[in-house]
Amino acid sequence: MNLYKNYFPIMRHNKSLAYLDNAATTQKPDMVIDAVAEYYKQENANPLRGLYELSQKATDAYENARKKIAKFINAQKEQEIIYTRNASESLNIVAFSLSDLVLQADDEILISIMEHHSNMIPWQQAAKRHHAKLVYLYPNEDGIITTDELTNKLSTKTKILSLTHVSNVLGAEQNIKELAAIAHANKTIVSVDGAQAIPHIKIDVQKLDCDFYSFSGHKMYAPMGIGVLYGKQEYLEKMPPFLTGGEMIDYVDEQTATYAELPYKFEAGTQNVGGAVGLSAAIDFMESVGYDTIIERETALGKLAGDELSKLPYVTIYGSKNPALHHGVIAFNIEGVHPHDVASLMDSGDVAIRGGHHCAQPLMRYLKCNFCCRASMAFYNDNEDIHQLIERVKYIRSYFHGA
Amino acid sequence: MNLYKNYFPIMRHNKSLAYLDNAATTQKPDMVIDAVAEYYKQENANPLRGLYELSQKATDAYENARKKIAKFINAQKEQEIIYTRNASESLNIVAFSLSDLVLQADDEILISIMEHHSNMIPWQQAAKRHHAKLVYLYPNEDGIITTDELTNKLSTKTKILSLTHVSNVLGAEQNIKELAAIAHANKTIVSVDGAQAIPHIKIDVQKLDCDFYSFSGHKMYAPMGIGVLYGKQEYLEKMPPFLTGGEMIDYVDEQTATYAELPYKFEAGTQNVGGAVGLSAAIDFMESVGYDTIIERETALGKLAGDELSKLPYVTIYGSKNPALHHGVIAFNIEGVHPHDVASLMDSGDVAIRGGHHCAQPLMRYLKCNFCCRASMAFYNDNEDIHQLIERVKYIRSYFHGA
Repeated sequence: MNLYKNYFPIMRHNKSLAYLDNAATTQKPDMVIDAVAEYYKQENANPLRGLYELSQKATDAYENARKKIAKFINAQKEQEIIYTRNASESLNIVAFSLSDLVLQADDEILISIMEHHSNMIPWQQAAKRHHAKLVYLYPNEDGIITTDELTNKLSTKTKILSLTHVSNVLGAEQNIKELAAIAHANKTIVSVDGAQAIPHIKIDVQKLDCDFYSFSGHKMYAPMGIGVLYGKQEYLEKMPPFLTGGEMIDYVDEQTATYAELPYKFEAGTQNVGGAVGLSAAIDFMESVGYDTIIERETALGKLAGDELSKLPYVTIYGSKNPALHHGVIAFNIEGVHPHDVASLMDSGDVAIRGGHHCAQPLMRYLKCNFCCRASMAFYNDNEDIHQLIERVKYIRSYFHGA
Repeated sequence: MNLYKNYFPIMRHNKSLAYLDNAATTQKPDMVIDAVAEYYKQENANPLRGLYELSQKATDAYENARKKIAKFINAQKEQEIIYTRNASESLNIVAFSLSDLVLQADDEILISIMEHHSNMIPWQQAAKRHHAKLVYLYPNEDGIITTDELTNKLSTKTKILSLTHVSNVLGAEQNIKELAAIAHANKTIVSVDGAQAIPHIKIDVQKLDCDFYSFSGHKMYAPMGIGVLYGKQEYLEKMPPFLTGGEMIDYVDEQTATYAELPYKFEAGTQNVGGAVGLSAAIDFMESVGYDTIIERETALGKLAGDELSKLPYVTIYGSKNPALHHGVIAFNIEGVHPHDVASLMDSGDVAIRGGHHCAQPLMRYLKCNFCCRASMAFYNDNEDIHQLIERVKYIRSYFHGA
């Protein structure tokens, strides 16, 4: 077992497991699990509202985590960091509230065919509600939205572009900085789904110059139940709230209410302070490993997996032939074997991968497969995991089709 | 330190603390904190989607918790249990999706002046969106909505009644069963905010015969970031989804989507499985203590606090004079001292209470005070905590006004 795996109790308890479903959720290191437990043992209270010591401690834990997140993605202000449950909720907030602010009938929203359902259905709903049109971008064979494709689809009606940073199936990284500049020149607001990017790529929202950036904690070593919406203050301030209720208000009377300042306007009800503490610890963990190491290891693992799978004539790999463009995600099919059967037989060989539509049905149809297998790596994986995967691919093929 | 406090690490670490802000959030016992940590150490994966062993374990943890919750509140079917972040989100889902299903222009929504902002602002929004009217019920001097008050306010236009089960300020329990029967005879759908009830009262949604019941985990010894919406299947099935995205779909194409069966239709994105496991452990904990013990202890503590505070001529208590009607919540003011000052000076005497508007501004104005103090008890509190509170009230009064 490599030293990185040793940080993860679930790996210590499952030494023969090749966990290659990191794009669905990563495992959690001791320091994250312990930080959450310690919060409940030492500092728990309802934050923001209390004037006593424990509540102050809880507030500090909550707000210090927000500061750390802001710094981690280089947001200009911590008020631009909104806590959510997960990236799906972050994207729902943008789709609902930003649409309410800017969309008129016949306007257009631009997304790509590669979007996860969470960056697709909220926009279908927004388009329907505002009688707007949902227009699609299509990638080139490397899984990249080109500047030409964007330029061709942009019009004076395009109010919003919402794009994945890294596809959860193809692993391709979009050049958000370049695309955002083109969109902004067209007065189009740019939202980015970063759920599959932030575990693998150092994010700087100011450099990307996107207007919104959404991500989940649980895909970057933090517990489930905590996510982030970054938004530029100029938009968040003007947008109507999404969820309403406790702590997001200023003044309430029987028929109307005025709302709190940022970021609280978007944080109704008691928030997941334990989750925020866990996310803060996950950031510490990732920074102690370092993105250089993360990228180096994941690129090497992706290259090894890609090279080995490419040698098998009965395996189809989706997306780019360049492993550096996969960010730890390799989607593939074994000729003649349903991905669900592949995933089940992988399991009996202690390899955890995903088989299915990966919450991206339109992309699956675009790729001319309804389902596929996906092996997704984190930096804690190692060559042994990849070899275990490859051996299992060979076994599964021979199980169904003979040697 | 009493034996119940000993189950709570934060109490063991703060032996002199009288924690009387349980209505804001309860502390967490070892078995809840440990259950969440063990989930991440042994069983963590993305549930529902995976065909490998860890994902099956995560799915079992998630769905077994749902079964336990259904049994805990006696829901007829586990599909009627929707996981949310907290009661605020549960109430937002009802206000948004049920309104979309049943509200027409000029229809009426009925709530009470005692509602927490989380059961008020979502209905303001729903009324605005559907050009409906938000109508208010007012309590009697015991903090009770009488059947007469309900009957007087119901009309053929009243489509929805959404009512707190126990007020977070007055502690008064509403007779939901009786009120729901009257509402149902009027074809009015009944939603209940149970956030302040379920820690103190055994809930049986079938006996209450409410159509929706919302509550938070963090007010009943579970971690933050997990809540529940119970809804009758006949309504949940017809209601449109609220959050959209991963895992809540059946079929997705570029412009439209069809939705998954209950309960998944309302659970977009990766859910908080660790939170569900924590809530399940909290239910085990509460059941091992037993509601009989919980009610007996909390009633006695409420009586002691009420009796002692009543002896102080400069203290005003809000709500009923009967401590059994307070369910561990006592709201009060000390003449001539601002509640914020009271709360701060309580803290310097190691008493944690809340001073403010308690997310119930319209009720505060109805009670003719903009702010008040609130001491709220859990069964783990004891007579020493109450005496510490009372001594501190006396000290604060003398600090500001002389002995």
